[in-house]
Amino acid sequence: MGSAMRFVDRLSKSIAAVDSYLCVGLDPDLSRMPEGIPRTPEGVLEFNIRMIDATKDIAAAYKPNAAFYEAMGHQGVWVLEETRRAIPSDRIALLDAKRGDIGNSSQKYAEAVFDTMGFDAVTVSPYLGRESLIPFLERPDRGAFVLSRTSNPTAGEVQKAHTGGMSLYVAIANMVAEMDGVNAGLVVGATVPGAIDEVRAAAPGIPLLIPGIGAQGGELGPAVKAAAQGPVLINSSRGIIYASSGTDYADAARKAAWNLAEDMRKAR
Amino acid sequence: MGSAMRFVDRLSKSIAAVDSYLCVGLDPDLSRMPEGIPRTPEGVLEFNIRMIDATKDIAAAYKPNAAFYEAMGHQGVWVLEETRRAIPSDRIALLDAKRGDIGNSSQKYAEAVFDTMGFDAVTVSPYLGRESLIPFLERPDRGAFVLSRTSNPTAGEVQKAHTGGMSLYVAIANMVAEMDGVNAGLVVGATVPGAIDEVRAAAPGIPLLIPGIGAQGGELGPAVKAAAQGPVLINSSRGIIYASSGTDYADAARKAAWNLAEDMRKAR
Repeated sequence: MGSAMRFVDRLSKSIAAVDSYLCVGLDPDLSRMPEGIPRTPEGVLEFNIRMIDATKDIAAAYKPNAAFYEAMGHQGVWVLEETRRAIPSDRIALLDAKRGDIGNSSQKYAEAVFDTMGFDAVTVSPYLGRESLIPFLERPDRGAFVLSRTSNPTAGEVQKAHTGGMSLYVAIANMVAEMDGVNAGLVVGATVPGAIDEVRAAAPGIPLLIPGIGAQGGELGPAVKAAAQGPVLINSSRGIIYASSGTDYADAARKAAWNLAEDMRKAR
Repeated sequence: MGSAMRFVDRLSKSIAAVDSYLCVGLDPDLSRMPEGIPRTPEGVLEFNIRMIDATKDIAAAYKPNAAFYEAMGHQGVWVLEETRRAIPSDRIALLDAKRGDIGNSSQKYAEAVFDTMGFDAVTVSPYLGRESLIPFLERPDRGAFVLSRTSNPTAGEVQKAHTGGMSLYVAIANMVAEMDGVNAGLVVGATVPGAIDEVRAAAPGIPLLIPGIGAQGGELGPAVKAAAQGPVLINSSRGIIYASSGTDYADAARKAAWNLAEDMRKAR
C-alpha cells in the first residue's frame, strides 16, 4: 500500500525475487478439498493460506479466479478478500475476473478489485472496446491483463475474426500496446501454437499472463522465450493445488510448484 | 423455485402481466443515495427494496449490475443476494454481470448466479466463444443474454470485426440463435442505429435485452418494434432510480417508470 512503484516494475521485481515466472492459480472447489480441510468457506481460506505458505518462495504471483469464490456467495467473497490479505505484499496478487462493462460500470469493477479488495492486478475482457478497459488502466501501480488469445477450445470463434487486416486478438494486442506501456498486460494461452510469438511481436515489453500449461496441454518453450522481451507470468492451477488429495497436500503442492519452476528455468 | 416453466415463457408472462417491456436497472451508488437513506450496505438494500416496491406493477424485470455491489465488497454481495429475494417471483430477476470464462470457470459462475444467488437470468460476454456460454444455457428455466452489440461508444472496435462475411455481433446473434431457441437471449444497444433490426433478423423469437434508452440517448421505436417478433426487455437505470434525490425518491421513481412504460405502449 502507498507504493508508487509502477506495476511493470513491481511485477519484474517479484519475478526476479523468486527467479520464476510461476503464477499459482487459486481455484478452490469445495468438493475437492483435501483430507483434513472442512468443506466450508473457512476451510477454503485455510487451504488457500496453506497453499500460499507452501509456495511463497517459488511463485511470483497468485491468481484466484473469482468464479470459484462467487459460487459460495458473499461468504466466498469474504474468503477472496482474506486470501488477498494472505498473499505477501512483495508478490503479485492477481484477480482472474475477466471483467468488462460500459464505462461507469467498469469504473465500479476497478474500484471493487483495486480499492475494496486491494488486488495488484486483474484480468479484463475487451468485448466492449477501449472505453471498458480505461478504468482498469488509470493507476500506474496496478495492472490489467486484457484477454487477447485465450487457451480454451472455442476461443477462435470470436478471437480469429478479422479487423484492420489482422486477427482480432492481434488487433487487441496492438490496441493495448498503444494505450499504455506501463500497466497494461495481455492474456495469451499456451495452447495455441504461434499465438504467444504473434502477441509478443505486437506488444514487446508488455507483461503477458500465459495460462494453458499442464492440464490444458500447452508447452513451456514459447512462454519462457517470450520472457526475454518483457515480464511473463505462467499460470498453473489444478496441477499445483490438487497435486495430492491426502494430508500431504501442502508438501505435494510445493513439490509440484518447484518442479514447474525448475522446468521453466531449464526452458530458457 | 421448482417451476419447470421455460425461461422464454416466464419472461413473456412477466411482460404480459404488467403490459410493459420495462426492466429497471438497480445500479445503486453509495454516494448517490437520496435524502434519508444511510450510505451503508443496509441503506442500499433499503433503497433497492423501496425501488422494487414502487415499481413492481410496472416493471417486467429488475437488473442489478454486479459491479455496483462488488464495489462494496462481500457486504455488497450480501446486498445483492437480499435484493434478489426482494424481487417478486413472477418478475424476472436478471443479474447484469457480463461473465464469461473457460468452461469449468463459467460453470462456477453459472452456479453462483443461478444456484447460490437464485437469479432467473444473467448477461454473459462471448469473447471466449461457445464453450464459455454453454454452462449458462443448460437450464431451460433460466436465461442468459449474450452481448451482441453493446450501447457504449467504443463497442464497434471489437464488435464490428468481420467473420464469415458478416460483423462479429451479427455472427454472435447467429451463433446464439443456433445454439438454443429456448433460454438464450441477446443484448443489443438502442444507441446503434439499425443494430436492433439486424440482430432481430438474425435471431427471430430470441429474447432481447435493450439498454441505452434515456441517459445514453437511444430511441424507443426500434426497440418496441422488435417486440413483435419475440420478447424484449428495455432497460432504464439512472432515469428511474435517481429520478429524485429528495425524500420523494420512491414516488419519483414510480412516476418515471410509469411514464417510460406509457411511452413504450405508445411506440407500438
